[in-house]
Amino acid sequence: MTTVRLEIEYDGSGFRGWAAQPGLRTVQGELEAALATVLREPVQLTVAGRTDAGVHALGQVASFVSEAEVPDDLTRRLNGVGPDDIAVIGARAVEDDFDARRSARSRSYLYRVLVRPAPSPFEQGRALWWPHRIDPEVLHECAAALPGTHDFTAFTPTQTDHVRFERDVLAAGWTTEGDILAFRITADAFMRNMVRVLVGTMLEVGNGRRTLDNFTQLLAGAPRSAAGDTAPPHGLYLEKVSY
Amino acid sequence: MTTVRLEIEYDGSGFRGWAAQPGLRTVQGELEAALATVLREPVQLTVAGRTDAGVHALGQVASFVSEAEVPDDLTRRLNGVGPDDIAVIGARAVEDDFDARRSARSRSYLYRVLVRPAPSPFEQGRALWWPHRIDPEVLHECAAALPGTHDFTAFTPTQTDHVRFERDVLAAGWTTEGDILAFRITADAFMRNMVRVLVGTMLEVGNGRRTLDNFTQLLAGAPRSAAGDTAPPHGLYLEKVSY
Repeated sequence: MTTVRLEIEYDGSGFRGWAAQPGLRTVQGELEAALATVLREPVQLTVAGRTDAGVHALGQVASFVSEAEVPDDLTRRLNGVGPDDIAVIGARAVEDDFDARRSARSRSYLYRVLVRPAPSPFEQGRALWWPHRIDPEVLHECAAALPGTHDFTAFTPTQTDHVRFERDVLAAGWTTEGDILAFRITADAFMRNMVRVLVGTMLEVGNGRRTLDNFTQLLAGAPRSAAGDTAPPHGLYLEKVSY
Repeated sequence: MTTVRLEIEYDGSGFRGWAAQPGLRTVQGELEAALATVLREPVQLTVAGRTDAGVHALGQVASFVSEAEVPDDLTRRLNGVGPDDIAVIGARAVEDDFDARRSARSRSYLYRVLVRPAPSPFEQGRALWWPHRIDPEVLHECAAALPGTHDFTAFTPTQTDHVRFERDVLAAGWTTEGDILAFRITADAFMRNMVRVLVGTMLEVGNGRRTLDNFTQLLAGAPRSAAGDTAPPHGLYLEKVSY
């Protein structure tokens, strides 16, 4: 028995999200099929961050327990049999008690916004195109309000399986990279749609349609209806998981 | 009569190159169709750099002469009717004697190489994947030999329409951007496949299969057979045209 930790990148455009669902193309489904081919046994993956349809990953982590001998060149063989929109960038044996989800201390997400009048062929499906007015200073002020423990009820759907709505935000900030405004946030854990609703709401502040005060007040457990739109999935990336 | 200058980006993956060809999807064909829709007259585009199938552009320039009134929001309207893999990032009236091809003083190309063991879902079709040994120092030495006037016969197909094989290279260099090795070269003009054969040959030097001396000797008019492979089109971008 070997516990194996995989580090994974994927372009979420062609997937109905991470979680395996019968008859749908999912990252978990494709990866488990590739693993079954290489290891000649069925395996079940545990993942650090379940991503929704269209959401990308640059540093997703998954783990599994294998009865089979795990080959040294597992990374290369998985990339050989798997699809082009998933890449395994690392695979290694870890301690028996490692679990990609439960062992994770924090997750970091990135949301990319393309700010320019024209769309971009290269950012199609990889950044939200925002040809509207935006004040980066105001975005910085929004992000500065995020670190700490807050009740994020306003930032997740009303119909929910979550039982606890507080999350610890360890870091959050916007940076400018050419035409791209990039939002990064690290927290112990995230609720469904949390980063996307945060971004959608901050863009309303940056656009002048909502005040900074209103935004910060939402962090005290306001209802979902008080926050802004859910930004589309194609700008979002699970960037890193820390253990 | 108005002469209009367009600045254009495109992802070359879905095109059989720039030049219009009956029955094939080309950048010129798609753009001329969009212009005909917006201007309600047929126009013919002149381009700074004719790119081959699969080659991208970040700063392509094209021009045309219009009999029609050119609307102020031409950029926005062209992006509205054109396909997603082409973006017009600027359109403006210029002096009558402007010609995107003849007026250009120099062109700059970029070639992107992804150097890491695993492929990348995000660089698929946008960078050459190079999981092999590479010495960036040797690549720097190759690039340092390029500025000046050289006979690039070795770096273009033997069957050719070119009559003059000397080109003036104004600048050339490799930079490292994360996992990407990026080669940039500016010259008065380029022959067919010139950047791709230069890159293919430099990669052989960087990999240890060819000496730096051999590479520099090719710049004195050696035959095509003496140079290396033609690197694939999907790593190449027309980055800038100067006037």
